[in-house]
Amino acid sequence: MKVDLILRNGWVFQTIRQRFEKMDIAVAGEKFYDISPVLPYEAECEVDCEGKYILPGLIDIHMHIESSMTYPREFSRTVLPFGVTTVVADAHEMANVFGMKGIKSFMDQETELDIFYGIPSSVPSTSPTLETSGGMIGEAEVKELLKDPRILCLGEVMNYKDLISPDKTLIQRIIDCCEENTRPVRLEGHCPALTGAALSAFIRAGVDADHTQQTAESVVEKSDKGMFLELQAKSLTREVIEAVEAHSLYENVALVTDDTMPDHLADGQLNRIVRLAVKEGMPVEKAVYCSTYTPARRMQLYDRGMIAPGKIADLAVYDNLEEFSPVAVYKSGKRYRPEDHLYIEDEAGSLFPEEFRKTLFCREAREEDFTIVCEEKKSGRTHWQGKALVHVMEVQTFGTRMVHKKRWVPVKDGVLCWQEEGLCLAVVYERYGKTGSLSFGLIDKAFSRRGAVATTWSHDSHNLLVIGNSPEDMAMAQREVLYMQGGYGVASQGKITAKAPLPIGGIVSDQPISRLAEELKEVRREIETLGYVNSNVIMSISTIGLLVSPELKLSDKGLVDVMSQEILPLVEETADQQA
Amino acid sequence: MKVDLILRNGWVFQTIRQRFEKMDIAVAGEKFYDISPVLPYEAECEVDCEGKYILPGLIDIHMHIESSMTYPREFSRTVLPFGVTTVVADAHEMANVFGMKGIKSFMDQETELDIFYGIPSSVPSTSPTLETSGGMIGEAEVKELLKDPRILCLGEVMNYKDLISPDKTLIQRIIDCCEENTRPVRLEGHCPALTGAALSAFIRAGVDADHTQQTAESVVEKSDKGMFLELQAKSLTREVIEAVEAHSLYENVALVTDDTMPDHLADGQLNRIVRLAVKEGMPVEKAVYCSTYTPARRMQLYDRGMIAPGKIADLAVYDNLEEFSPVAVYKSGKRYRPEDHLYIEDEAGSLFPEEFRKTLFCREAREEDFTIVCEEKKSGRTHWQGKALVHVMEVQTFGTRMVHKKRWVPVKDGVLCWQEEGLCLAVVYERYGKTGSLSFGLIDKAFSRRGAVATTWSHDSHNLLVIGNSPEDMAMAQREVLYMQGGYGVASQGKITAKAPLPIGGIVSDQPISRLAEELKEVRREIETLGYVNSNVIMSISTIGLLVSPELKLSDKGLVDVMSQEILPLVEETADQQA
Repeated sequence: MKVDLILRNGWVFQTIRQRFEKMDIAVAGEKFYDISPVLPYEAECEVDCEGKYILPGLIDIHMHIESSMTYPREFSRTVLPFGVTTVVADAHEMANVFGMKGIKSFMDQETELDIFYGIPSSVPSTSPTLETSGGMIGEAEVKELLKDPRILCLGEVMNYKDLISPDKTLIQRIIDCCEENTRPVRLEGHCPALTGAALSAFIRAGVDADHTQQTAESVVEKSDKGMFLELQAKSLTREVIEAVEAHSLYENVALVTDDTMPDHLADGQLNRIVRLAVKEGMPVEKAVYCSTYTPARRMQLYDRGMIAPGKIADLAVYDNLEEFSPVAVYKSGKRYRPEDHLYIEDEAGSLFPEEFRKTLFCREAREEDFTIVCEEKKSGRTHWQGKALVHVMEVQTFGTRMVHKKRWVPVKDGVLCWQEEGLCLAVVYERYGKTGSLSFGLIDKAFSRRGAVATTWSHDSHNLLVIGNSPEDMAMAQREVLYMQGGYGVASQGKITAKAPLPIGGIVSDQPISRLAEELKEVRREIETLGYVNSNVIMSISTIGLLVSPELKLSDKGLVDVMSQEILPLVEETADQQA
Repeated sequence: MKVDLILRNGWVFQTIRQRFEKMDIAVAGEKFYDISPVLPYEAECEVDCEGKYILPGLIDIHMHIESSMTYPREFSRTVLPFGVTTVVADAHEMANVFGMKGIKSFMDQETELDIFYGIPSSVPSTSPTLETSGGMIGEAEVKELLKDPRILCLGEVMNYKDLISPDKTLIQRIIDCCEENTRPVRLEGHCPALTGAALSAFIRAGVDADHTQQTAESVVEKSDKGMFLELQAKSLTREVIEAVEAHSLYENVALVTDDTMPDHLADGQLNRIVRLAVKEGMPVEKAVYCSTYTPARRMQLYDRGMIAPGKIADLAVYDNLEEFSPVAVYKSGKRYRPEDHLYIEDEAGSLFPEEFRKTLFCREAREEDFTIVCEEKKSGRTHWQGKALVHVMEVQTFGTRMVHKKRWVPVKDGVLCWQEEGLCLAVVYERYGKTGSLSFGLIDKAFSRRGAVATTWSHDSHNLLVIGNSPEDMAMAQREVLYMQGGYGVASQGKITAKAPLPIGGIVSDQPISRLAEELKEVRREIETLGYVNSNVIMSISTIGLLVSPELKLSDKGLVDVMSQEILPLVEETADQQA
C-alpha cells in the first residue's frame, strides 16, 4: 500500500488517553489512513517530525466571523495558519442587518477552512418594539436553514423570559422546529449569571450549553445540571480552571473564542485561547482535548477532532507547546501554504450583492441633534430653569456592562446641560429607513477629552450610534461613518482622527485583515486617547446598544432597562429652580 | 410551583463529576424538573431517600432480546425491576428467521422499557452460498428501517473481508445507506482480535465500536484509533479494567450485556454487569457512569442518561452499591411496580402472527440419517475397509470457539465409524423448506455419556441442529424439537430428559420468563450430565452453526472453515487397509 503522506516520529496527541506518544501518521486522500509507532507503508511524501508536536486541527464551536469584521474567505485565510481547521459560526450580525440574505452570503463562500453554522436564534436580540433591525429570523427562516447539513446548532438562545414563558413564544417555536428536525441539532445558550431554579428552567427548555462568563461555582452547577460549558477568554481565570480540574469537568468543556477583534487576530484565534488556558493553569493535554475532541463531539462532528484512521486529516505541527503557533498546518490531508491563498483585490465585490454596500438610510447629523430639550414635567413648560433627574449609563473598566445610575442634571432655558456634568451624549440614528428616528442616552465615565465616536458596528441591530461630548465632533464622526457607508469614525477637536470603513452592511470590511487591523488599532488608540477606559474600548462602545447585556442600554427606540426589558424615558423627574 | 414527585436526601449520582452527593430530586410529568441539595417545591408525593443511593436508569446499548429467548413485552417486565430503563436491541435472530417481518413484530410491541433498535447488518451472517436462513436484510430493508426514529445504529458489522473489499459489497452498500441517512446513525462493529493495520482498515470503513472480547492491549489500541468500547462480561477481567483505569478510558467505554440467557436473567441484566465490573475492580462511580451516561451519549440519546433538569425521569433507588438490586425503580417519572405488569396468558398470540408458530419445514429424523457412508477417494469404491481423515470440531471449555482438528477414523464396509472414536455426530436439517438438505460434521470432546441434543436456537440461521453419539437418541431429540416447532430437546438412553419449547420461530418462548428459565436450567443440567464441558453449554452448542465464530463450524451447507469462509468436505482423505 502506498499512501500520500507520512509524518514520522512526531509527538502525536492521543486523544482518548490525553497524552503525547511518538507515532507515525499516514494520510491517504483527505483522511488519516493509519497511526502507529511504526508504520510500514510507502508514501508519496515523507515528513520527519522528530521533536515536533502534532495536534488535531483546532475546532472552535462558538464564534462569530463578524466579530473580526471580515468575511468567511478572508477569515479562512487568517485562521488556518493558526492550526484552526473547523469553526461553527453564528452569523448573527449579518442576520441582524440583512436577514436570511446575509446568512446565505456567508454560507455561499467557498473556504479552505471548514465552516459550519449555527442558526441565529435572536434576531432581533429582543423584539421589534424595543429595537429596529434590518433583518429578522422567524420560524420560516429556521426551517429553511435546518435543511442545510452545515447547520449544526441553534446559536446562543438568550431571551430567558420568552424561553420559559407559558405562552408559545417565538423562541419556543424556533426550538420546536429544531427539535422536530429529522437531523438533530444542538441548542446553544447564553445565560450569564443564571443559577438555581432559573438555570434549571432554562435547561428544561432544551438549551444545554452556555458560553458566557463562568465562575468556579457556575461550572459545577451547570455541569451537574447537564449543561455543556464553552469557555472563552473571560472564563479562563485561575479559579474557573481550578474548579474544572478539581471536579474533572473536561469532557464537559470546550474552549471557544466567541469574539476575536480584527486587531487581535494577529495574535491568534482559538490557538490563543488554548495558550491562555495553559498559561492560567490548565494542563496542556486537557487544553488540546477541549479544543479538538470535546467540541467535535458536542457538535456531533464525528468525522474529526482526533488523529485516527478514517477521520478528516486536519492537523498542525508545532515546535513547542508554549506559543501554540504551528510551523505547518494540514487541512484535509493537504499542506496549507498561506502563499497559495492570498487576498484577492476587490474579492468582496464578487462575494456580496451590490446592495450590501448601500445600507445606511439615515440622514446626516446636525449639531442641533445634540441639544436635548426637556419640558418641566408637571407644568409642561418649555424654556424653564431647574434640573432633571436622568437615567445614566455608567461605563465599567471591564466587560460590556453599563451600570444604571440616576443623576440630577441642570436645565437652562429648557435645555439639558449634560456637558456641564462631564457626561457624554449617545444618539442612535435608526439606519434602515424604517422609522428614521433618533434616540438619546447619557453616559458617565466615557470621555475625559473633547471628541466623539460614531459606528454602525453596534450590536445587535447595528444602527448608527454616535457618542461624544462635543456636538461638532459628534456630527463630524457621524457624517464620516455615513460617508463610508458604515464602520468606525473618531473625531476630536474638529478633525477625524481615525476611521475604519466597514462597507458591507456597515459591519464587514472588504479589505485584507491586516489593513483592517491597522485601521482598527488606530481607532482603538484614538478612543483611548479620548480617555475612555475599558479592557476593550471597541467592544464596550459597540455594545451600548446591546439590549441583552446589563444594565441600561440604548436602542433606536430609546433607553432600555435590560432586566425588565422596558423602555425608560431619558428624564425621569424634573424640579424647578426652587426645589 | 407544585411538582409531581420529590425524592429527598438520597445520595444522588452526579454524572459529570462522577460522584454521589446528597440531593433532592423533583419530577414533573415524565421528566426531571430540578435537582439541588434542597428543593423548595411542594410535591404531590414526597419520598424520603435518606441513606439510599439514586442512580439514573441503566442503558444497555448492545444486546439481543432473543438471547433471552423471549419477546419484548416479557423482557421489559423482567428487566425494569433491575433498574434497566433503556436498551438498544439488535433483533438479529428474528431477522434471520423472519426477515423484516420478524424485526417489526418486535418493534410493534408496546413496552414500559424504552427499546430502541439497531439494524441487523449481517443477515445471513455470511452469505446464502454458505448457509440457508429464513430472512435476509439488504439495502431496501435497511432504507425502510432507517425511517423509524427508534433505529439508532447499524448492529455489529462483522464481515471484515466484505467490509474492506475493493468491490462494493452488500455491507458497504448498507453502510452507505446509513451514512447518507438524514438522521445519522452509529455504526457498531464486531471485530474480535483485530489489530494493527487490519483494525485500522475496519475503522476506516466507518465502523467505530466493538463489543467483542477485549484485552488490556486492545482497549488501548482501539481507543487510540477512535473506536468506542462496549465491554461485556467476558471483557471485564482485572487486566482489562486495570488498563481502562490506567489510561482513563472511561469516557470511551460502555458496559453492555450482549447476550443474557433466560436462566441467567434471574440474577439481573445490565445491573449484573455493573456488579461484575465493580467486583473486578472498577470504581463504582465509573461503572455507573459507563452504564448510564456514556452509552446514552454513544447512541445520541441526549434526553437521558443522567439525573438533570429536562431529562427523562428514569432512575432507580438502591439500598447499597454491592448488589445493584434496586428497591424502587421509576420509569419516565412513574414508579414501576412489577405487580401492575404481570405476564398475560397467551399474550404472545396477539403479538405475533399465527404463521410465526409453524416454521419448521424439515422432515423427521430417521436413525439411518446418522450413518455416514464414505467412498474410497481414489477408486470411488463403496463397501471398502480402511480409514478416513476427517475434519473435526473440538469443543473448548470456555467460549464459543471450535478448534479445527483432523483425525483418522476407521471405515468399515464403507461406513465411517465415528462412534468408535468417541466422537459425536452433528447434523443440520435445513428447516426453511428451501433445500431440505442435511449436512454432517464431527465433534470431539462433546459427550462422555450416551445421548443427544437437538435445537433450533442455533445461531445464526437457526436451522435444526442435532448432535449426539446415539442414533436412537438423536432421532428422538430431533423429533421432539420438530414436534414443539422449535426449542431445545435432550435425549438420553431412549428417553427425553429435558426440553424447552421455543414455538415462535423456533427461537422465542411464549411463556413467562420464570417458566422458561426453569426449563432451560433443566436442559443445561441434562446437557452437562451428558458430559459436555463448557462455561455455557447452551451457547456452545447453539454456536456450532455460527459461521463467524472460529474456527470450524457446521451450516446446512456443510462444514465451513471460518477464516477462509470456504466449505470443506467432511472427509479430506482416505486410506485403504494396507496404508
